[in-house]
Amino acid sequence: MSSSLGSIFKITTFGESHGPMVGAVIDGCPARMALTEADIQPQLDRRRPGQSDLTTPREEADRVTIVSGVEKGVTLGSPVTLTIQNRDTRPEDYGETMAAPRPSHADFSYKARYGVVASSGGGRASARETAARVAAGAVAEKILREQFGIEIVAWVQSVKDIVAPEADLTRLSRADVDKTLVRCPDAASAAAMAALIRQVRDEGDSVGGVVACVCRNVPAGWGDPVFDKMTARLAGAMLSIPATRGFEFGSGFSSTLSRGSEHNDMFVDKGGKLGTLTNRSGGLQGGITNGEPVLFRVAFKPPATIGRAQVTADWNGRETPFKARGRHDPCVVPRAVPVVEAMAALVLVDAALSVASGR
Amino acid sequence: MSSSLGSIFKITTFGESHGPMVGAVIDGCPARMALTEADIQPQLDRRRPGQSDLTTPREEADRVTIVSGVEKGVTLGSPVTLTIQNRDTRPEDYGETMAAPRPSHADFSYKARYGVVASSGGGRASARETAARVAAGAVAEKILREQFGIEIVAWVQSVKDIVAPEADLTRLSRADVDKTLVRCPDAASAAAMAALIRQVRDEGDSVGGVVACVCRNVPAGWGDPVFDKMTARLAGAMLSIPATRGFEFGSGFSSTLSRGSEHNDMFVDKGGKLGTLTNRSGGLQGGITNGEPVLFRVAFKPPATIGRAQVTADWNGRETPFKARGRHDPCVVPRAVPVVEAMAALVLVDAALSVASGR
Amino acid sequence: MSSSLGSIFKITTFGESHGPMVGAVIDGCPARMALTEADIQPQLDRRRPGQSDLTTPREEADRVTIVSGVEKGVTLGSPVTLTIQNRDTRPEDYGETMAAPRPSHADFSYKARYGVVASSGGGRASARETAARVAAGAVAEKILREQFGIEIVAWVQSVKDIVAPEADLTRLSRADVDKTLVRCPDAASAAAMAALIRQVRDEGDSVGGVVACVCRNVPAGWGDPVFDKMTARLAGAMLSIPATRGFEFGSGFSSTLSRGSEHNDMFVDKGGKLGTLTNRSGGLQGGITNGEPVLFRVAFKPPATIGRAQVTADWNGRETPFKARGRHDPCVVPRAVPVVEAMAALVLVDAALSVASGR
Amino acid sequence: MSSSLGSIFKITTFGESHGPMVGAVIDGCPARMALTEADIQPQLDRRRPGQSDLTTPREEADRVTIVSGVEKGVTLGSPVTLTIQNRDTRPEDYGETMAAPRPSHADFSYKARYGVVASSGGGRASARETAARVAAGAVAEKILREQFGIEIVAWVQSVKDIVAPEADLTRLSRADVDKTLVRCPDAASAAAMAALIRQVRDEGDSVGGVVACVCRNVPAGWGDPVFDKMTARLAGAMLSIPATRGFEFGSGFSSTLSRGSEHNDMFVDKGGKLGTLTNRSGGLQGGITNGEPVLFRVAFKPPATIGRAQVTADWNGRETPFKARGRHDPCVVPRAVPVVEAMAALVLVDAALSVASGR
Repeated sequence: MSSSLGSIFKITTFGESHGPMVGAVIDGCPARMALTEADIQPQLDRRRPGQSDLTTPREEADRVTIVSGVEKGVTLGSPVTLTIQNRDTRPEDYGETMAAPRPSHADFSYKARYGVVASSGGGRASARETAARVAAGAVAEKILREQFGIEIVAWVQSVKDIVAPEADLTRLSRADVDKTLVRCPDAASAAAMAALIRQVRDEGDSVGGVVACVCRNVPAGWGDPVFDKMTARLAGAMLSIPATRGFEFGSGFSSTLSRGSEHNDMFVDKGGKLGTLTNRSGGLQGGITNGEPVLFRVAFKPPATIGRAQVTADWNGRETPFKARGRHDPCVVPRAVPVVEAMAALVLVDAALSVASGR
Repeated sequence: MSSSLGSIFKITTFGESHGPMVGAVIDGCPARMALTEADIQPQLDRRRPGQSDLTTPREEADRVTIVSGVEKGVTLGSPVTLTIQNRDTRPEDYGETMAAPRPSHADFSYKARYGVVASSGGGRASARETAARVAAGAVAEKILREQFGIEIVAWVQSVKDIVAPEADLTRLSRADVDKTLVRCPDAASAAAMAALIRQVRDEGDSVGGVVACVCRNVPAGWGDPVFDKMTARLAGAMLSIPATRGFEFGSGFSSTLSRGSEHNDMFVDKGGKLGTLTNRSGGLQGGITNGEPVLFRVAFKPPATIGRAQVTADWNGRETPFKARGRHDPCVVPRAVPVVEAMAALVLVDAALSVASGR
Repeated sequence: MSSSLGSIFKITTFGESHGPMVGAVIDGCPARMALTEADIQPQLDRRRPGQSDLTTPREEADRVTIVSGVEKGVTLGSPVTLTIQNRDTRPEDYGETMAAPRPSHADFSYKARYGVVASSGGGRASARETAARVAAGAVAEKILREQFGIEIVAWVQSVKDIVAPEADLTRLSRADVDKTLVRCPDAASAAAMAALIRQVRDEGDSVGGVVACVCRNVPAGWGDPVFDKMTARLAGAMLSIPATRGFEFGSGFSSTLSRGSEHNDMFVDKGGKLGTLTNRSGGLQGGITNGEPVLFRVAFKPPATIGRAQVTADWNGRETPFKARGRHDPCVVPRAVPVVEAMAALVLVDAALSVASGR
Repeated sequence: MSSSLGSIFKITTFGESHGPMVGAVIDGCPARMALTEADIQPQLDRRRPGQSDLTTPREEADRVTIVSGVEKGVTLGSPVTLTIQNRDTRPEDYGETMAAPRPSHADFSYKARYGVVASSGGGRASARETAARVAAGAVAEKILREQFGIEIVAWVQSVKDIVAPEADLTRLSRADVDKTLVRCPDAASAAAMAALIRQVRDEGDSVGGVVACVCRNVPAGWGDPVFDKMTARLAGAMLSIPATRGFEFGSGFSSTLSRGSEHNDMFVDKGGKLGTLTNRSGGLQGGITNGEPVLFRVAFKPPATIGRAQVTADWNGRETPFKARGRHDPCVVPRAVPVVEAMAALVLVDAALSVASGR
């Protein structure tokens, strides 16, 4: 089930980076919901390559087409299939890959798994696959927004050692995030981040960063005990994104530095219902939402594919210089923002439908 | 499916903390495998409460019984069911819980989810549920050890700000880990950690820490692309453990501080097969194992239940002092070590059987 | 997932025929539902062996115990685990099985599948496993009855060539069915069936029959398109019962003998909502309920284990006489009635919760 | 999960009858397998509408395109996506449907389920969806044929009361079946069947029939106990095909007419391995294959959509004459033959991969 996610709102993605298309089938999308490509395209536009000089120059319009499950702009309850054509493919760029596995990329492990590697650009390991997730996530997000008023906003929290100050999580919007190409809402940090990204790009190098995300207006009581805790689902969803290295929610790793008496979130009356004074729990207690904003962070490593030569070994173990030709991002976090939002939406909508099932 | 994990080697756990028993059903355990309770008990002994003065005084022998799936010491291919009786239950300790939701515990969110809360001690949110995971994990680990020579070793990397130096991952053993009650292989760090735990215990407080884990001899090619990446599966499994706040593998969050040219793991011939010079990937490229040791870390917050009084709100929003009476660990990481190992084993064995399926 | 059924109300059964117990875990049982053993025992009593001279003389009280998921008589939302001890086991009766695979039984195919066979009485292939289904089915049925007023009634339609006349499906009750030991509501047919069963029993032989089932008050709109049609789910559930050979719903196989113009169910106003004049569809159109009674039939072959000697081959292919010693039913249909009802309830409740999920 | 089937070789179908396309995603297709459209097209040609005067006149070339998962003619291990464009759609034919639910069709139940009905021709309930199954089934069948030498042959056993004599199951081939348009290998029966189908077609009526299927060379030991018995999987798969009313395997419903002493299949040495003298078990004991041919039958009702006027009720319960305009088959069994084969292949390949997983 490697390409499927979710138990009720279940998506299956398909397509290789340099094949004819990528896409997603959503099985379990509620019926009678207004849905057109216009609901989906904006998030794809935020993810698409070539959107600025901070990203890969690969040019993809990433136009989504709904090919099933919708008639006259309304969902039928049947599988909603979304396709996105690949236009600017260059399999010829990947001749080097055939001779040697790219360092810290999936060529070697995929070969070990399947005995065969897509000749061109990572196949399913490519970040191109995430276009399908963003498309499906936009459908999930529409349900969450319209039925529950949920707002999901991710942003770039850090690039290398440039760390933005804490944002005001009660009002941060996508518009705030999109004010800068790097998608950091703090203007000064964003400028420094962009400068750094351009520098490493020019040096044929790459750099990592952290994407943070807040989900507001999530009702209390979403998520399940034990293995389907929302924390577990979010962690699994985020670590399924290419180039990720870590996940934390609420106080995260820094929670280990405090005592329980300092760390606990005390309950308090908030206009007639219980809330917490602080939110070190990141909105999640026992893996189930408590009505406070859901807050988490995802670490992205520096992209493995860089322009400068590296000394590695070829498939036969012989030392070889390796220099990538494929077009790649010097830093993935600006484009990872809508991917993180999509994965959060997919986890949340599945939890929403699960709760609705009454089990 | 909240209480099930895995797609081929699939476990379902059951039982509340203060009910008659906890247990696990393993559906998909291979047949013709020698299996007795003696294969399982040692890891349960490492997890059981009351094992030292660093843990909760709740006294549970945690004796496992195999009640199905095994005949004459050999697995039949049918579901293997493991039960562990609860002996030292004290539901009367939880009267306070009924009056007010415990801060940073699951009482409030479970009530929101189900409209009812187990009267006694967390029900399924209790760490007691992890006894069932440890039992099932021991079966998984036996398969991994006997068929592949896999060694899984977790240890306490830090307690609050006491951080142990890096262990020698090529040879660290459980015997090394178990030399100290706190399960940190570095003696000096262990002594400081134990002293701190005793101090916070005596102060009616609690403290968190980080558990690290290495899995050696995992063959290259385990894991699946996209949503079932082993990174995603591990992250989900670890974040399903109570009191966890974060997960990272390989270079983790610190990867964001380096450049690609510094971070990439170069391939090199290792006695006739490809390996990597460094292991910043934590043995996982594109979510699939590359033959190097799998390495990850899990953050555990300070336990929410502490002996000292806290000011919180009751179910009706009225301010109330709250002081827990239930017996709890002042720091969970020493006992979390076998739980982390069990979850790793469960993820690995499912990947092993998935690869064997030839798909 | 061989021992699990359902996607939201999901059961996993465990236990061998001659092991210590059989049982079921229900993951996904709704919370806040009153539930005690008394809700479950009556259907187990209808299934239990030794209930009359028409059944196997194996004596099992089949007392169910709820060991998790319920506190103070109310479900918690956590897994509900039901156990039934095996008391009257006689593994020594199965020495013959070790020498030769029983004809038309599962010994041979299980050996091919797993390389090992439970020494005693079929292991998981035994009808004893169905006790766990009946227990779980009783929980499902309680939900269906209390929330929707659904009535599920199965009965013996035929034993060998003794076929009962059509029952009045609008009012047939379990009390009607239980008036005779053979569970056929037509007294004359029941007497003839019982006489035949006693005769074949005395002759060391066995006989088959057909169980029919009606489910009343099932709302329109339950079931899913394509692979999860309720027809498909029911067929799969029924053919998972030991000794079954066929399934048909509505007009069944006899539908092939009519023309469309004779066979179609015309719509008609029924007190303000649409119903059908006839019910050749068995309440299911396109695999989804239409509000009419769901009606189906299941064929059970004559039990393979008979008292008279048969000439077969041993595991090495040598001709050998075979005479069973295990205690078995001369005809399974009287005891299959509650099993069919349980499987119907399990399919229906999962559909109900799926519809409720709003997808 | 209504549109997904299988646990390891998992297919998800999508697309409505009168939308732009139908298709299937296969997640879990083994890597390194030669695969092109030419492997798939022949079975689609046997299913396509317009292939003879016995079928619907809707003209569809049903050309399959592989859009993912295959590169240079070899599978990559990633999802294999197959698409089939719809060309000859006529949504305008379905104006009547909007006014009244078609008798014995899915319009009414889908409306109850989803609150919306595809304006055109049944949407997902249409037999057009089975084109996607046949495409995916051809991939499954290729694996079974090449790795195990399995041969799957279905044929028309009866049309209304015209029943063909038993075929020689040891050698019956698809070539034998395809000698007649009606796909009955017995020439005399085929002629009578074709004549009847033309007659009912000319009379604006329809007729049902039975499709039988044999699967040869299936190894012993495929299938799983309890709920995933191969009998259960086959029954579920077959009853998911539109217009089906019943399923039986081996001796089927007629088994209920015999005694155990007459019905049991005795074991016998067959050239060094155990086989059975008779095959009343249809190759399946305890739901697991025994190495004998797997044999089953599926009942198809007369198509609901007929040309002659019927008196039914409109959506508001008012009596109305109804006369279908959509193009439909007067008898579905000739085209159902490859659909039954596809579903059998999908069930078998999933069992094969499950056994290979070693669980």
